[in-house]
Amino acid sequence: MPGNTFGHSFRVTTAGESHGPGNVVIIDGVPPGIPLSVADLQVDLDRRRPGQSKITTQRDEPDEPEILAGVFEGRTTGTSIAILVRNKDQRSKDYSDIQELYRPGHADYTFDAKYGFRDYRGGGRSSARETTVRVAAGVVAKKLIEQAFGGRVVGYVTQVGDVKAEIADPAAVTLDQVERTPDGTPNIVRCPDPVAAARMVSLIDECRKDEDSIGGVAEIVAINVPAGLGEPVFDKVKADLAKALFSLPAVLGVEYGIGFGCATMRGSAHNDVFVAGPVTDHERPDIKTRTNRHGGMLGGITSGMPIVLRAAVKPTSSLSKEQPTVTRHGVPATIRTKGRHDPCLLPRFVPMAEAMVAIVLADHWLRWQAQCGGNL
Amino acid sequence: MPGNTFGHSFRVTTAGESHGPGNVVIIDGVPPGIPLSVADLQVDLDRRRPGQSKITTQRDEPDEPEILAGVFEGRTTGTSIAILVRNKDQRSKDYSDIQELYRPGHADYTFDAKYGFRDYRGGGRSSARETTVRVAAGVVAKKLIEQAFGGRVVGYVTQVGDVKAEIADPAAVTLDQVERTPDGTPNIVRCPDPVAAARMVSLIDECRKDEDSIGGVAEIVAINVPAGLGEPVFDKVKADLAKALFSLPAVLGVEYGIGFGCATMRGSAHNDVFVAGPVTDHERPDIKTRTNRHGGMLGGITSGMPIVLRAAVKPTSSLSKEQPTVTRHGVPATIRTKGRHDPCLLPRFVPMAEAMVAIVLADHWLRWQAQCGGNL
Amino acid sequence: MPGNTFGHSFRVTTAGESHGPGNVVIIDGVPPGIPLSVADLQVDLDRRRPGQSKITTQRDEPDEPEILAGVFEGRTTGTSIAILVRNKDQRSKDYSDIQELYRPGHADYTFDAKYGFRDYRGGGRSSARETTVRVAAGVVAKKLIEQAFGGRVVGYVTQVGDVKAEIADPAAVTLDQVERTPDGTPNIVRCPDPVAAARMVSLIDECRKDEDSIGGVAEIVAINVPAGLGEPVFDKVKADLAKALFSLPAVLGVEYGIGFGCATMRGSAHNDVFVAGPVTDHERPDIKTRTNRHGGMLGGITSGMPIVLRAAVKPTSSLSKEQPTVTRHGVPATIRTKGRHDPCLLPRFVPMAEAMVAIVLADHWLRWQAQCGGNL
Amino acid sequence: MPGNTFGHSFRVTTAGESHGPGNVVIIDGVPPGIPLSVADLQVDLDRRRPGQSKITTQRDEPDEPEILAGVFEGRTTGTSIAILVRNKDQRSKDYSDIQELYRPGHADYTFDAKYGFRDYRGGGRSSARETTVRVAAGVVAKKLIEQAFGGRVVGYVTQVGDVKAEIADPAAVTLDQVERTPDGTPNIVRCPDPVAAARMVSLIDECRKDEDSIGGVAEIVAINVPAGLGEPVFDKVKADLAKALFSLPAVLGVEYGIGFGCATMRGSAHNDVFVAGPVTDHERPDIKTRTNRHGGMLGGITSGMPIVLRAAVKPTSSLSKEQPTVTRHGVPATIRTKGRHDPCLLPRFVPMAEAMVAIVLADHWLRWQAQCGGNL
Repeated sequence: MPGNTFGHSFRVTTAGESHGPGNVVIIDGVPPGIPLSVADLQVDLDRRRPGQSKITTQRDEPDEPEILAGVFEGRTTGTSIAILVRNKDQRSKDYSDIQELYRPGHADYTFDAKYGFRDYRGGGRSSARETTVRVAAGVVAKKLIEQAFGGRVVGYVTQVGDVKAEIADPAAVTLDQVERTPDGTPNIVRCPDPVAAARMVSLIDECRKDEDSIGGVAEIVAINVPAGLGEPVFDKVKADLAKALFSLPAVLGVEYGIGFGCATMRGSAHNDVFVAGPVTDHERPDIKTRTNRHGGMLGGITSGMPIVLRAAVKPTSSLSKEQPTVTRHGVPATIRTKGRHDPCLLPRFVPMAEAMVAIVLADHWLRWQAQCGGNL
Repeated sequence: MPGNTFGHSFRVTTAGESHGPGNVVIIDGVPPGIPLSVADLQVDLDRRRPGQSKITTQRDEPDEPEILAGVFEGRTTGTSIAILVRNKDQRSKDYSDIQELYRPGHADYTFDAKYGFRDYRGGGRSSARETTVRVAAGVVAKKLIEQAFGGRVVGYVTQVGDVKAEIADPAAVTLDQVERTPDGTPNIVRCPDPVAAARMVSLIDECRKDEDSIGGVAEIVAINVPAGLGEPVFDKVKADLAKALFSLPAVLGVEYGIGFGCATMRGSAHNDVFVAGPVTDHERPDIKTRTNRHGGMLGGITSGMPIVLRAAVKPTSSLSKEQPTVTRHGVPATIRTKGRHDPCLLPRFVPMAEAMVAIVLADHWLRWQAQCGGNL
Repeated sequence: MPGNTFGHSFRVTTAGESHGPGNVVIIDGVPPGIPLSVADLQVDLDRRRPGQSKITTQRDEPDEPEILAGVFEGRTTGTSIAILVRNKDQRSKDYSDIQELYRPGHADYTFDAKYGFRDYRGGGRSSARETTVRVAAGVVAKKLIEQAFGGRVVGYVTQVGDVKAEIADPAAVTLDQVERTPDGTPNIVRCPDPVAAARMVSLIDECRKDEDSIGGVAEIVAINVPAGLGEPVFDKVKADLAKALFSLPAVLGVEYGIGFGCATMRGSAHNDVFVAGPVTDHERPDIKTRTNRHGGMLGGITSGMPIVLRAAVKPTSSLSKEQPTVTRHGVPATIRTKGRHDPCLLPRFVPMAEAMVAIVLADHWLRWQAQCGGNL
Repeated sequence: MPGNTFGHSFRVTTAGESHGPGNVVIIDGVPPGIPLSVADLQVDLDRRRPGQSKITTQRDEPDEPEILAGVFEGRTTGTSIAILVRNKDQRSKDYSDIQELYRPGHADYTFDAKYGFRDYRGGGRSSARETTVRVAAGVVAKKLIEQAFGGRVVGYVTQVGDVKAEIADPAAVTLDQVERTPDGTPNIVRCPDPVAAARMVSLIDECRKDEDSIGGVAEIVAINVPAGLGEPVFDKVKADLAKALFSLPAVLGVEYGIGFGCATMRGSAHNDVFVAGPVTDHERPDIKTRTNRHGGMLGGITSGMPIVLRAAVKPTSSLSKEQPTVTRHGVPATIRTKGRHDPCLLPRFVPMAEAMVAIVLADHWLRWQAQCGGNL
């Protein structure tokens, strides 16, 4: 079974390469009647767009989407939605110099090993360019969860190299804080801690000048998610969220709540204490926890507390600096990737990660609705 | 879509609760002709079994499997395999005292929120007892990958609380080292570093005496996995492995290779250098990397290097010690779980994690074979 | 991807052979709170049971189900349900005489061709014995659709050989008419037309005495199904119903509504005329059709009219009469299947077909609910 | 779970409406290295194209495909393939007259019932226009099965109204006979019996002049399919083929082999007799049957004999003739569909049906390869 489909009830299928005609996504299972326009899609596509600041790749792509199907008179019809984002700046240059070389840290070798050959113009299907249409699908998912339960997903950068942000309350971070600095200029690194943000920008710039790259960590938070989403025993929300984030390029680690910090804790210190929340329209009060070390999921099912996840993103593999490698035939060689790559992946990783988290939550909402949403 | 099925070409479906008649798994897609017996299954079931040592729960379960279908004259037939493990020690006691209480750190509340009610005898479906049959399925997967490509999966404990093991070479750890100490006694904590193992046992015992529990980290290694497994773009092997591990109870974090350590690295220090391996029967040499910070996967496709993963496991939520909580109706209360729980989940987590990793690799092997295994 | 799972939101996975320990089904996705007992299951299992009358096989199986999981205090929990039906009368006889022979009309040869060997004791996995647990799953599906929308599924035999029943109104046939003759005795052939039923019994008995078998047709009707179920463009209800029926042994043809009769019709005579039904609690009246040549589905989506399907079932392949065949090595031989087979499959086919239809409708109800059941 | 995806290992996902920008398909799981060009696709697209003859709709669509992804240097890469076919002649006319009307026999009412509203410009997603990209995907499937095992799929019309073709040997019908009459002119009705073909054309023309339409039957044959394809117990090839054909618009019945004719047969007359075929490179001879009443599948697994299926296709629902109907609000009205519809669907149904059959066989080939194709 091939792997270009994600989700079950909210189902995303993609195709496209970095240097082909474009990338396309088919989104299936979207409830009818949700308002959807090209302008809606453009917002997050612009957040993911190359060339958006001095600390991202300078490849110039307008990333203007075309809705091919599934929307009529400005609303989703309930049938499958198709969105196409054409590649513009794929530069028909001569690739003969890298055709035979395996770029370190890239999937060139593994694609070759898998398929027997590869599209050697850029990364082909392994390029992060495929995430363009994930982000478009994420916009639809965000609209769905907001309409269904007021759900909101916000991501931001918490670490670049040794620079760590201080985030008092993950659930309180706003999109505006992520996108704009306190003085109103674009927050190009997408870190809501202004002091850390400035240091991150400096560090990234320094790496770029050194013809090098740098890793980091992003945190993604989802609020207003109702308790009860997630499917025992394999499709726990934590499992699907982890899969979603690990399916993104360059992710080497994922944790939620206290994460790896749990290893040194005792149960008595770790367990979050339940408390009664306000009585809602049900007969019983909502149950909350005083702390949120469990990151919004217990037994893999959402608890109603904010979902908090972190992903570790490796430093960009492409370097302007010369690196040793081998050819397809194992002959030692050197490689140097000129221009047009991000010195740090984190700023553009944020909208990709948000999209994947939103898709998982939209999927689990619909799945919950299938089984438990009726009036049996 | 419900969530009790895992995998696509090697597909595992389970049912069962901690205090019902038993747990059952149907394994579908297994190639015909693989030798399989109850004795084969018993080996790993014994490694997962409660009551195996002083540092595990004392619930007494023989966990003897019955093969209900799919095996004929000692070999798999190619049709679906069913395995049943009956619960023996489920003690028909009075649960009225905990029926109304939400155990901290457990899924009691979230199951109630999801389904409107729950099986309050123990954890029901949320209990780790459901992993019994995952381990049985893992045995089948291990046999498949060994027969197909000599694949082997070994897990072990690397950290309990502050005690960390020193592992010189993850790919060199043997099952024997995991199961037995240098002096031949059972390695009850499943840590291959004997010095750390002894300290871990002491720490766990101390927590048990304190009526408390402790978290930790396990590492799982798969060797001899051929390059080329994994399905772009969503079903990357790293994504499916992460989902597999996060689907296990109590896992709060997963990383592979250098993991979260990548956040502070520069690309030039992070990228593993390709080198030519020995020339095999193909026209080209195998390609290896000098180091293995990439943990055996590039672009989410296996590279032929050892796969190395770590999972963070939280301290057991059940405590003999009294904890504050609330009832279903939000009324403050206290709870105390008497006996029969693991003071540390790690020793028994190891075979569960191995099983899930083996299942993912078996699945991806069959998926690779579907698309790329032919002679087109 | 293996094939022992059916359905998406209501998902049935089975294992088991005719001469192994038993058959087991895992049913996943069932909403919580549905009353379910062994006695509920037994009703349809008894309708499917071998040995129920003089015109069925005399294999003696009580077919008593055991619920292994998913039911607590008499209600479904929402987690996966497992049901086991053990084989009792599998007679450990000597199979060496048929081990090498391919029974005509059976799957002996094709299983061998597929897997390289087969379970030669009876049909193994290809035996209709696997449908035991489909019928058990069908009971759960029937309960779900009845609770959800008052849905009811009734099947009956309309043709055996040249004997055809006259059914004035398929939607008016009751289970009681199918199971009991007007004089209160069991309607062993399950044809609601008493005159035809008597002639069918005679014909089947005649075939049995001739050591031969006979084919026929069954009709399955589902009433009270709401308009709007079915998923364009591939998972039309008509497509999933056809797959469901063709997945049963011995089915060679399926049609709905006017079926193959449409081939000779003109559009003006074929189209059913829409009429306004009574105004319900919606703003608009229900729409009905004056006739039901469309068999309850338009564009593969249910129209609210009765769903009417027919399946052609071949004569039993096993014959007491001697038949020519070949061995696995192609050597000409003869074969004769002694006793214990149905001279006509139709009477016992009815509950199997009902089960599959109910499963499809339960699945599509949940799928509808996922996407369209919310209050967006 | 939504319904716009078909197949498992060879997986087709589509989107698009009759009057939107176009239709798009993503084909996933295609083995790498298969030659594929726009010209390859155009062949079958032209066979399906509207406006191809006087007996088809006169809507004018060039149906020129664009390959958006998955092909590099003229060969499939192994990653997902995307193909777009834009709509040209969708005429931005005024639909206000039919916006409120339910066209008899169409899915207008059922789409409204399902989604709460519909794309009222033509059939939207329910239009047969969506099959354009199924045909494109079918071309890829045809190339795969031909390369893998010399498989070929040919469909043709066997009945229009009362006119039935005489086909001596379904397995001997060639594509050339289907596409061309003995005198070299286009065989516009796609019936390989020239006498019947001429009468069919006359009948269709007569219906067209009467502002009416007519039904019929198509037969689809697949040859050179190896024994052993099909997945017990639910994904039998017969089940998946039936689903595939029933997923096409206007299909009311499907049968294979002797089909509904089995109802009146005795087992002794029905069973096909096995005979030894020529000894191949295996140790054992291939097994054949003297006759092919079983239509190439036993137990739902291919037998190596030709696969022979038939589908009943209803008369076109759209009529130039006035028909009675109702509005969305149940008010009686009349409707008349002007021009641009096929007076008989059969001639253009043939390539659609071939495509679906080829897709099922490609899928099952890959699925077989996953489980049984290895060298365990």
